[in-house]
Amino acid sequence: MTDRFSGLELRSTVSAAGQLTLSLETVDRDAPGPDEVIVRVEAAPINPSDLGLLLGPADLSTLRPGTGDDPVLTADIPPARMAAMKPRLDQSLPVGNEGAGTVVAAGANAQALLGKRVGMMGGAMYAQYRKLPARDCIVLPEGASAADGASMFVNPLTALSMVETLRREGHKALVHTAAASNLGQMLNRVCIADGVPLVNIVRSEAQAEILRAIGATHIVDSSAADFREKLTDAIAETGATLAFDAIGGGKLANTILHAMEAAANRTATEYSRYGSSTFKQVYIYGALDLGPTELDRGYGFAWAVSGFLLTPFLMKLGMEGVMRLRARVAAELTTTFASRYSATISLADVLDPEIVAAYARKATGEKYLIDPSR
Amino acid sequence: MTDRFSGLELRSTVSAAGQLTLSLETVDRDAPGPDEVIVRVEAAPINPSDLGLLLGPADLSTLRPGTGDDPVLTADIPPARMAAMKPRLDQSLPVGNEGAGTVVAAGANAQALLGKRVGMMGGAMYAQYRKLPARDCIVLPEGASAADGASMFVNPLTALSMVETLRREGHKALVHTAAASNLGQMLNRVCIADGVPLVNIVRSEAQAEILRAIGATHIVDSSAADFREKLTDAIAETGATLAFDAIGGGKLANTILHAMEAAANRTATEYSRYGSSTFKQVYIYGALDLGPTELDRGYGFAWAVSGFLLTPFLMKLGMEGVMRLRARVAAELTTTFASRYSATISLADVLDPEIVAAYARKATGEKYLIDPSR
Repeated sequence: MTDRFSGLELRSTVSAAGQLTLSLETVDRDAPGPDEVIVRVEAAPINPSDLGLLLGPADLSTLRPGTGDDPVLTADIPPARMAAMKPRLDQSLPVGNEGAGTVVAAGANAQALLGKRVGMMGGAMYAQYRKLPARDCIVLPEGASAADGASMFVNPLTALSMVETLRREGHKALVHTAAASNLGQMLNRVCIADGVPLVNIVRSEAQAEILRAIGATHIVDSSAADFREKLTDAIAETGATLAFDAIGGGKLANTILHAMEAAANRTATEYSRYGSSTFKQVYIYGALDLGPTELDRGYGFAWAVSGFLLTPFLMKLGMEGVMRLRARVAAELTTTFASRYSATISLADVLDPEIVAAYARKATGEKYLIDPSR
Repeated sequence: MTDRFSGLELRSTVSAAGQLTLSLETVDRDAPGPDEVIVRVEAAPINPSDLGLLLGPADLSTLRPGTGDDPVLTADIPPARMAAMKPRLDQSLPVGNEGAGTVVAAGANAQALLGKRVGMMGGAMYAQYRKLPARDCIVLPEGASAADGASMFVNPLTALSMVETLRREGHKALVHTAAASNLGQMLNRVCIADGVPLVNIVRSEAQAEILRAIGATHIVDSSAADFREKLTDAIAETGATLAFDAIGGGKLANTILHAMEAAANRTATEYSRYGSSTFKQVYIYGALDLGPTELDRGYGFAWAVSGFLLTPFLMKLGMEGVMRLRARVAAELTTTFASRYSATISLADVLDPEIVAAYARKATGEKYLIDPSR
């Protein structure tokens, strides 16, 4: 049975000498344990959250392809960025947070999954086969393709977690940046269904158009001259005091906090030297801009800027809460939580310098899907 | 009775034209209501938290004194900073968060306070007389001077609130910046008494010496070449994951978060691409550096940087909690919560350009006390 599920797995390695190497290793899967399954991976997305592990802080202008039968891709890592690499040095790390495929072997307690198409979470998905606990799989609805199920964890659970956070922390409306992304579109559909006002910040008129087409009400374009004013108007109208920011670097989080404070002060009746008492929260959940976050603190003391990461949030939410969110994702997989991909590539393509340049751009609306069975 | 308690009160006004004016107005106090008292103010500190209202963002190089019997001081406010002044334009605002003095009149239900020396909180303390609810006064212990009681709210309650926050949010040690301040010294005494490990960040060897003299264990000097390393060592040793930062601007909060993350990773057994799971919190409670806060986010996603303000925290703590903290301050007023002042000045001195330059410097260890009865 072992060699039947022998297959390629993508690995990322950073050497102490400052070189990133992507390679395809042949890995043998042992027979599944009683509660495990082996899945033939047929679709796995390249999310922004995968790129950090996949490419590290490599200088992509130094990409060098491998040759022939043993495909390898290397790139240099700037010395200034090597300190952060220390914990992963010289380890051959598998990549890929989520994916979908067909169950080709199942342990004694997981026989019901055999032959089923499932969505999976848990890393190491950029591989031809993945062995994992049955509980980390969700059976896809009848008729759903592997591509439909490939992104049923990270983006859908993140979108739902934003709305869960809003409820848990007592806010009544949301601000979201890079809002025309796959995640942003899902969030709009969730917020419309749940009646949560959502202020979408986009970076172009084309992105605004994507959101208008799916029914978004509040869309502000950060490239417009009157951006701050329009943002303040939308925040005042919705009462948003919570933002999720995918950009991270630069001044956008700061601008959002200013707009929230200005909106709060529109209804203030007296001057407070310490700013309004309206608590304003920005969660940074991405790093589309790797530069520093700049906060001028010109919005009093009732504010917080925090990192946000899905897994710890789900742990806080608890098993029952997570199962509730998962069930909703499964039920609305091809509607609310539909993903669109700009291209489907093979495992070998992931090591192609031209294709790397394309998927590493993280352009809004562009998302790559790997099909390791190709 | 009314004209008996007629006296001077300091006022700060920002005009729409961009001019700050400090003046002394004569104010008549009505007779106190049944639950009120009138206090002759004998001591009121100039805290950093008072300076924002007192001087606003005025350019102190433009200070112009008034003349003769009607003392007035004016200064220009840079146009770029006028937007934030909008809510206070053309209002003559009293100043001074806290103070102490002698009760000279009391309503029917507050007769027990008559003739007593009390500490007070509630604004408008830079005045010869202050009328306020009896519940906002604390009777000073026998033998305590007005100077002893002048700072029994802001600094002591802030120091105690830091330790309360540590307990409420589940941290086990604290980092504090500008740690040789009056507040920092109090915090050291509280932490020693309560057995809470405290990492003190100071900016000079002289400040380190002040803290060593009162028994501080962990002192790191940010002007030393090995600051980051020493800070990480102290954080690793104490397990500090909570910091209170009085500086605000620049990179110190960022440096603290890096040191906390490095300390967490010293015991990490495997690489996490998203940083450690150790939650790291920095509260910014001051603005000794008015520049922007810069966060490079090189410490994963388990972090938060938030504003911290005493009054909302006390509201969260509830009346019972506040009474507990107040009782401790009163009991330990001349020991744990002793304040030192570098100079005592009159109300008129507050309008003297040379003295303004001195008290506006906010140098660690320098604090001015106003005695309006002079």
